[in-house]
Amino acid sequence: MNAIDAFGLQLTIRPIGVVRSELKEPMAMATSDQDIDSQRLERMRREAWKTKTLVSELVVADEWREALVGLEEFSHVLVIYWAHLVPDNRRGIKQIRPMGRKDMPLRGVLATCSPARPNPILVSIARLLERDGTRLRVQGLEAVDGSPVLDVKPFVAGYHSAEDSTIPDWLKRIREEFERPPKE
Amino acid sequence: MNAIDAFGLQLTIRPIGVVRSELKEPMAMATSDQDIDSQRLERMRREAWKTKTLVSELVVADEWREALVGLEEFSHVLVIYWAHLVPDNRRGIKQIRPMGRKDMPLRGVLATCSPARPNPILVSIARLLERDGTRLRVQGLEAVDGSPVLDVKPFVAGYHSAEDSTIPDWLKRIREEFERPPKE
Repeated sequence: MNAIDAFGLQLTIRPIGVVRSELKEPMAMATSDQDIDSQRLERMRREAWKTKTLVSELVVADEWREALVGLEEFSHVLVIYWAHLVPDNRRGIKQIRPMGRKDMPLRGVLATCSPARPNPILVSIARLLERDGTRLRVQGLEAVDGSPVLDVKPFVAGYHSAEDSTIPDWLKRIREEFERPPKE
Repeated sequence: MNAIDAFGLQLTIRPIGVVRSELKEPMAMATSDQDIDSQRLERMRREAWKTKTLVSELVVADEWREALVGLEEFSHVLVIYWAHLVPDNRRGIKQIRPMGRKDMPLRGVLATCSPARPNPILVSIARLLERDGTRLRVQGLEAVDGSPVLDVKPFVAGYHSAEDSTIPDWLKRIREEFERPPKE
């Protein structure tokens, strides 16, 4: 038995809350390898741009009320949530083309931010606008409506980030496309 | 039934790998409220300083070999892991003093980076030195030896980080203490 078999154990997670958002579905389904035409790209860019300023809410279960005290002292939070719209059978996918785009190289899912991954745990940073008891008003959260919230952490620059990080060219291309504001 | 009761569901996670590290135990136990004397602080600072350059390994299960392809194109990874040394009964703790220090204010666990949280899912950034098949050599990983790895993501600056984030004074104090190199 090697070190990993030792984890025959399955870990159990009970969500602490839920995301309430105008975002009703994920931006891209990475399994469907599609040509990226300018119209589709423009639509995705509009959605991504909108998400940057979108205000949504984390509704935390009342039993964790005391556990949230002081979170409002931070400007940003790391939200750890579950990609509940990923069907179980897609947790076995090994490789994809980023954003389901034919013009992107084939990569391992763990080398991308695809929600279809072995354990669909997603991490998103959001600005914390307000804490009202167990309700957190946040801005810029990518999570879709109904996502189970697994954890909320204060975001600490330098601890949760690296200063000299680099990314591959394919991702630079995506980021450049999405950093420009969409056409009106 | 409100939105959160709907999650009576328990989510199941199967670790994809394990951490191999010289770090055998967590730096601070946050439940034991201790006076912070200069000797204890100095010991913690030495450990934290050592961790910054410590090289450890993520051993991923063979079934995910293909899913790792391309990760080596990134300089840094986000490691999502399970705080397996936190006993189940400590997952119910609501408030703590950061690092178990009497000179720190009482805060909700979700407003701190304490591993004793409802779902002990931890996030650590590490430099990816090398991928050798399913073995990832990383630097600066805070996870202790034996930690189950739940997910590995490429770290993408600007996406996983915020530029204008702020933190409260108590945490500024801790960070200042730990940013200075320890005494020899």
